[in-house]
Amino acid sequence: MVQLKDDERLDYLLAEDLRIIQSPSVFSFSLDAVLLARFVYVPIQKGKLIDLCSGNGVIPLFLSARTKGDITGVEIQERLYDMALRSIEYNQLEDRIQMIHGDIKDMPRELGNGKYDVVTCNPPYFPTPSKEEINANEHLAIARHEIYCTLEDTIRVASQLAKQGGKVAFVHRPGRLVDIVTLMRQYRLEPKRIQLVYPKRGKEANTLLVEAIKDGKSDLKILPPLYVYEENNEYTPEIKEILYGDKA
Amino acid sequence: MVQLKDDERLDYLLAEDLRIIQSPSVFSFSLDAVLLARFVYVPIQKGKLIDLCSGNGVIPLFLSARTKGDITGVEIQERLYDMALRSIEYNQLEDRIQMIHGDIKDMPRELGNGKYDVVTCNPPYFPTPSKEEINANEHLAIARHEIYCTLEDTIRVASQLAKQGGKVAFVHRPGRLVDIVTLMRQYRLEPKRIQLVYPKRGKEANTLLVEAIKDGKSDLKILPPLYVYEENNEYTPEIKEILYGDKA
Repeated sequence: MVQLKDDERLDYLLAEDLRIIQSPSVFSFSLDAVLLARFVYVPIQKGKLIDLCSGNGVIPLFLSARTKGDITGVEIQERLYDMALRSIEYNQLEDRIQMIHGDIKDMPRELGNGKYDVVTCNPPYFPTPSKEEINANEHLAIARHEIYCTLEDTIRVASQLAKQGGKVAFVHRPGRLVDIVTLMRQYRLEPKRIQLVYPKRGKEANTLLVEAIKDGKSDLKILPPLYVYEENNEYTPEIKEILYGDKA
Repeated sequence: MVQLKDDERLDYLLAEDLRIIQSPSVFSFSLDAVLLARFVYVPIQKGKLIDLCSGNGVIPLFLSARTKGDITGVEIQERLYDMALRSIEYNQLEDRIQMIHGDIKDMPRELGNGKYDVVTCNPPYFPTPSKEEINANEHLAIARHEIYCTLEDTIRVASQLAKQGGKVAFVHRPGRLVDIVTLMRQYRLEPKRIQLVYPKRGKEANTLLVEAIKDGKSDLKILPPLYVYEENNEYTPEIKEILYGDKA
């Protein structure tokens, strides 16, 4: 049993046989989070993974289906942290996923430098919003806008937490590609794999997946593109597989 | 009439109704040069364009079909410069394309800073080769390896030659994406458009096209991918169109 608050729903993560608490007015995970959880390298048998700006814990939940390692999620909003806790409990994953309610900027001091094999982050995409936008819906504003942390904060913290040779993977908008790779280099993260996600054939990319290695050598690969929708607005087979697995 | 030397051939640039002198042992243009000449923004009626590391003049020749502006090509190898001159003459484009036999690093001093609307460059892709590689074929070694100019030289010179708001477009390998965009920013060139070229569907990208604006604002777009070959190893329709135009 799970306690649902306000307008929360218990949604399926179909491909993984997991369920997750969501709320349209507080936080619902996006396809971007799913794509990042699938894109990032993970050690299968063991290792330490940490997800920054975790929201309702969607990336830790997805990662738990790919690795037997220890997964930590960090979320600054208590309301979202609480949703993540209840989802983890519902899926009986308390022994493999721990959530921290805190500011990612404090994590290197609290958790130590260079301890993680994998760091993931689906950070806020947009610059700081107006007071009106924050007042309209504070939860969504914090998740979407660089209010509590900037892109540079997330990359600096990710680098501090990663061990040498550890992987750091981000999802963001293609418009920030140059910012991301220059900041990564500045913080000793060498981009090694990029994948671009296009809403449809013939359209510009709208999502960027990038994985770097702490203190890695310069040698970037750009993977085949991923398309989300067919011409008829149905998901493409590759996206169906990611979202629904063999239940498609 | 045109004088052909050694193993030179007079090849067709089919899509443009032009012909170009090539030589398998000295220099033959690549698809990359064609893709760059098609990718870059050009002013149609007038303007000043310059192509660095011009080889046999393939990019100036292609550009001449897209713009009525003045085009300059710079090539350090006299043998290639001479091929370019004869091709320009054969196509009767002497009034619109001028070739300079010289080192690109001298061009800002010789031509002045900030004078060009468009700068293109298909630079050498590989690090400095061994003495043996240079001895085996000096012409090809210079065209392919960073012997006379590094990537940083080409980007610095391109930035110096471009006027404020001018376009600078490069073609290179995806493995150098991070180097290119960080160097561009360092030299006041803000990447605005990227296109990735994939040899086939499902393969990693093998060519990167990037266009920056001198002193531009940060706002990168990633265009739809370009595929070169179909599964049956024929050119895709989009590549046929680029190579052969309506003669496909």
